[in-house]
Amino acid sequence: MGRGSTEPGGPEAGLAAVRVRLDIGYDGTGFSGWARQPGRRTVQETLEDAHADLPADRWAAAGPAAVRRLARLLPPDVRVHRAVLAPPGFDARFAALWRRYAYRVCDDPALADPLARHRTLWHRSLLDLEVMNQAALACLGEHDFAAYCRRRAGASTVRTLLRLDWARTGPAVAEATVVADAFCHNMVRALVGAMLKVGEGSRPPGWPAEVLAARARDPAVPVVPPHGLCLEEVGYPADAGLAARATAARHLRAAPTA
Amino acid sequence: MGRGSTEPGGPEAGLAAVRVRLDIGYDGTGFSGWARQPGRRTVQETLEDAHADLPADRWAAAGPAAVRRLARLLPPDVRVHRAVLAPPGFDARFAALWRRYAYRVCDDPALADPLARHRTLWHRSLLDLEVMNQAALACLGEHDFAAYCRRRAGASTVRTLLRLDWARTGPAVAEATVVADAFCHNMVRALVGAMLKVGEGSRPPGWPAEVLAARARDPAVPVVPPHGLCLEEVGYPADAGLAARATAARHLRAAPTA
Repeated sequence: MGRGSTEPGGPEAGLAAVRVRLDIGYDGTGFSGWARQPGRRTVQETLEDAHADLPADRWAAAGPAAVRRLARLLPPDVRVHRAVLAPPGFDARFAALWRRYAYRVCDDPALADPLARHRTLWHRSLLDLEVMNQAALACLGEHDFAAYCRRRAGASTVRTLLRLDWARTGPAVAEATVVADAFCHNMVRALVGAMLKVGEGSRPPGWPAEVLAARARDPAVPVVPPHGLCLEEVGYPADAGLAARATAARHLRAAPTA
Repeated sequence: MGRGSTEPGGPEAGLAAVRVRLDIGYDGTGFSGWARQPGRRTVQETLEDAHADLPADRWAAAGPAAVRRLARLLPPDVRVHRAVLAPPGFDARFAALWRRYAYRVCDDPALADPLARHRTLWHRSLLDLEVMNQAALACLGEHDFAAYCRRRAGASTVRTLLRLDWARTGPAVAEATVVADAFCHNMVRALVGAMLKVGEGSRPPGWPAEVLAARARDPAVPVVPPHGLCLEEVGYPADAGLAARATAARHLRAAPTA
């Protein structure tokens, strides 16, 4: 599940090369992630199919009308909330300063809300948020998160974890707020998996930071299921800083991990 | 969708005739309503199946353990949040003083939240809550709600509507709060259907009260879909008043409508 920004279809519309910033919301349940994959339903493909007959320049000009038109064309599990001409230098991925994710866990299966079950992990036993927050503190800052990522050749796994904390937000609901400059694949779900081990008492509070320092995937860290995860917000610099940020981030992410 | 109380399985457990009050939550999407029906999946049947091997007296004695055990036996779209020995005179249906429902409508399909789509009606056009609230006021009080109910032989359609108002609770989300001593079949969904006609401007604010006064189903009133509806709370009197309330309500509901 996620909310965020993206910029499909500027160039591929085949007319004036304008870039449109789409602020979108989607329910990830019925998708195989964001990026186009042969034979799979993805968010990118669904969005591109819906705007295939809508040239980018007319779209930007139409403004709110384009958004209403997309609301009729798109399936109900994807919505385009806003479509505006993107400022120069805007790049949904590389110009971002930070991403904020939430991960929701219900830690009492009897108190669980059936209506929220598609966006909340049900965990068998009570979680001690105090020790989880203690464990989280030790992981903050710039680190090589290789231990919590699926590795990709030629890509850095160094990230800056800006925030990771847990709070109770409902009856038997614990919610993690996770903010970083960027995330590697599976990073939030692996970090949450390690925290749950601490919260249920099967690992000590220092364990997630030890795993981090070892810089290698540890099979004892479970990657929690995707349905509890939601990309809540992506932060961008002011327009004047977009291009510089995108250049810097591209350089950083491509750097081989030392 | 709904939350409420019920008392299945006191007598049918075949042991001591204790009555257990269950506070439950369920997602109505996968059920054909509450009551057992041949060949259909209903909430009552699902609950009774889960406690078939759990005698009522042991259940009441077990307390929290029974609730945890039920959490393992029940499917994820039904939860028993609490199970306690019911006080004398308790009757989930007839001892209730009032029921509170919510009905959620998103009135901008572009701003709609895909994650909330299973519990929110998406309406094409912007709703004017001010005229809807004006329309609602004229329906409050004790009336024969035959115009907003599916009739059943031998049952009164007189009800007391205690509250019906609309408020914005999120981006493009309008939420109705509907409270009555009791409701006839389809009553909330028909009342909401009439209000939407007013809110979108296709009927004047006085129309829902005119329909009410006519005491006959009006085909111009749409019964809105069930997925926006949620039974939020049921109110009961203090223990000492339960039996008297149940007797009075049984008497009232069976009275032929004058």
